[in-house]
Amino acid sequence: MVPRSKGMAGKGLFITLEGGEGAGKSTQARLLAEALSAEGHKVLLTREPGGTPGAEEIRNLLLFGKVDLSWRAEILMHMAARSDHLDNAILPALERGEIVVCDRFHDSTLAYQGYGIGQGASEVLAFLNGARKLVDFEPDLTLMLELPRTQALARLKARGGQTDRYEAQAEAFHERVLAGFDAIASADPARVKRVDAGQTPEAVSAALLQAVHESLTVQGV
Amino acid sequence: MVPRSKGMAGKGLFITLEGGEGAGKSTQARLLAEALSAEGHKVLLTREPGGTPGAEEIRNLLLFGKVDLSWRAEILMHMAARSDHLDNAILPALERGEIVVCDRFHDSTLAYQGYGIGQGASEVLAFLNGARKLVDFEPDLTLMLELPRTQALARLKARGGQTDRYEAQAEAFHERVLAGFDAIASADPARVKRVDAGQTPEAVSAALLQAVHESLTVQGV
Repeated sequence: MVPRSKGMAGKGLFITLEGGEGAGKSTQARLLAEALSAEGHKVLLTREPGGTPGAEEIRNLLLFGKVDLSWRAEILMHMAARSDHLDNAILPALERGEIVVCDRFHDSTLAYQGYGIGQGASEVLAFLNGARKLVDFEPDLTLMLELPRTQALARLKARGGQTDRYEAQAEAFHERVLAGFDAIASADPARVKRVDAGQTPEAVSAALLQAVHESLTVQGV
Repeated sequence: MVPRSKGMAGKGLFITLEGGEGAGKSTQARLLAEALSAEGHKVLLTREPGGTPGAEEIRNLLLFGKVDLSWRAEILMHMAARSDHLDNAILPALERGEIVVCDRFHDSTLAYQGYGIGQGASEVLAFLNGARKLVDFEPDLTLMLELPRTQALARLKARGGQTDRYEAQAEAFHERVLAGFDAIASADPARVKRVDAGQTPEAVSAALLQAVHESLTVQGV
C-alpha cells in the first residue's frame, strides 16, 4: 500500500480508460492491451469496480445488489473494491514493471458518485476527496473517451444485455456524469488525454496507442 | 451525515457495547434495551457490522464471503457498512431523541482490524484513524464488557453455532483483540466504562443500566 509517485522510472505504467457508458471503453481497453502486448510489453488488462476476486464480489453487490446504500456508504464500497484491486493486482503488476490498462478508476467514482448521484454537492465532493486521499494512488495516464449521450444511447440500445444500477439511472443522471468527466479532463490536462470516441474503432484505437507511446517515452518505461 | 457533537442536549443518546467474543454483548445489549424501554425510553437496539438492509449485505460478505480482502479493503468495507448504518438507522433515531443501543462500533474495527489483523502496525493504525475521521461519529457512552479469553472460550464452546471469519482466527489473534480493547478503554476513560463480564448476567445487566443512568443524567436526555 505504499503510495507510488507518478512516473517512478522502470516501475511500469498505469493507464486508465474513462468515460460514460457506450463510449467503447471495454473494447478499446482490450484493443490497447493487445497492441501493447504485440509490441512486447507485459500487460495487465483489468477493470473497476472489480479486478480481483474480492473486488468482484463487491462489484456484484454494488451493481446488482437489492438495496441502495447511502451515498457515502456507496463511495466507501467503491474505495474498498479499489483498495483490494490495488493491493492484490495493480500494485504487484507495476512492481514487476508491467503496463496496467484499467477500465475505470478514481475518475469514474468522482463522475458517477460525485456528480451523478451526489449532484456535485460540496459535502459529497469533500467526502470523496477525503476518501481518495485515503486510497492514494493515481494513474500515469488517463484516456478519456468522449461521446455525446445521444450517440452513446444508440450504441447501448444496439448492444443490449443486462442493465446495472448505474445504467438504469435517468437521463439527467447520465448528463451530470458526462459533465463530471468533462470537468475532470479540464482540471488535469497533464494526466487526462481526451479522445473523440465518435471516430471509427480503428481510429480511436490508433489515437489511444499514440497517447500511450508518448507517455512511455516521457516515463522511460 | 452531519457530524454530531457528543451529548447534544435533547437529541438522544448513543450507547455502544464492545468487547471480545463470548463476553455476552448481544444478550446484554438486549437486556439493556428492554430495561430502558420499560423505563419509558424509545430505544433502537442494533448491531455492527449490519443494522440496515444494505449493511447486512456487507456483513454477510465480510463474515461469510469466500475471499479474503486486503487489510485496507476490509477496513473500508466496515466503514461502508457503518456509514449506511449511521445514515439510515442511527442518526435518524438520535434525531428523534431515542436511545440507540449498538452491539459493536468503531472500537471493534480498531480492535479486530487494527490490533487483531493489522497487529498494531503503525501504517494500519494510521489508515484506520484516517477512515474513522471520514466516518466521523462517536458514542456518548461505550460499555466495555471484559472477560479473560479462557472464560470466553468456555462460553463459546457451550454456545455452538456457525463460526464466522473472525471467530475462526487463531488464539493469538483473539489475545491481540483483547489487548486492543484494553488499550482503547485506557485511552478514553471519559467515554468507555469497563464492566466485569464474569459476573452473573443479572449483575452485569445492573452495572450497565447504572452506567447508562449516570450518562443520561449528564447528557440531560
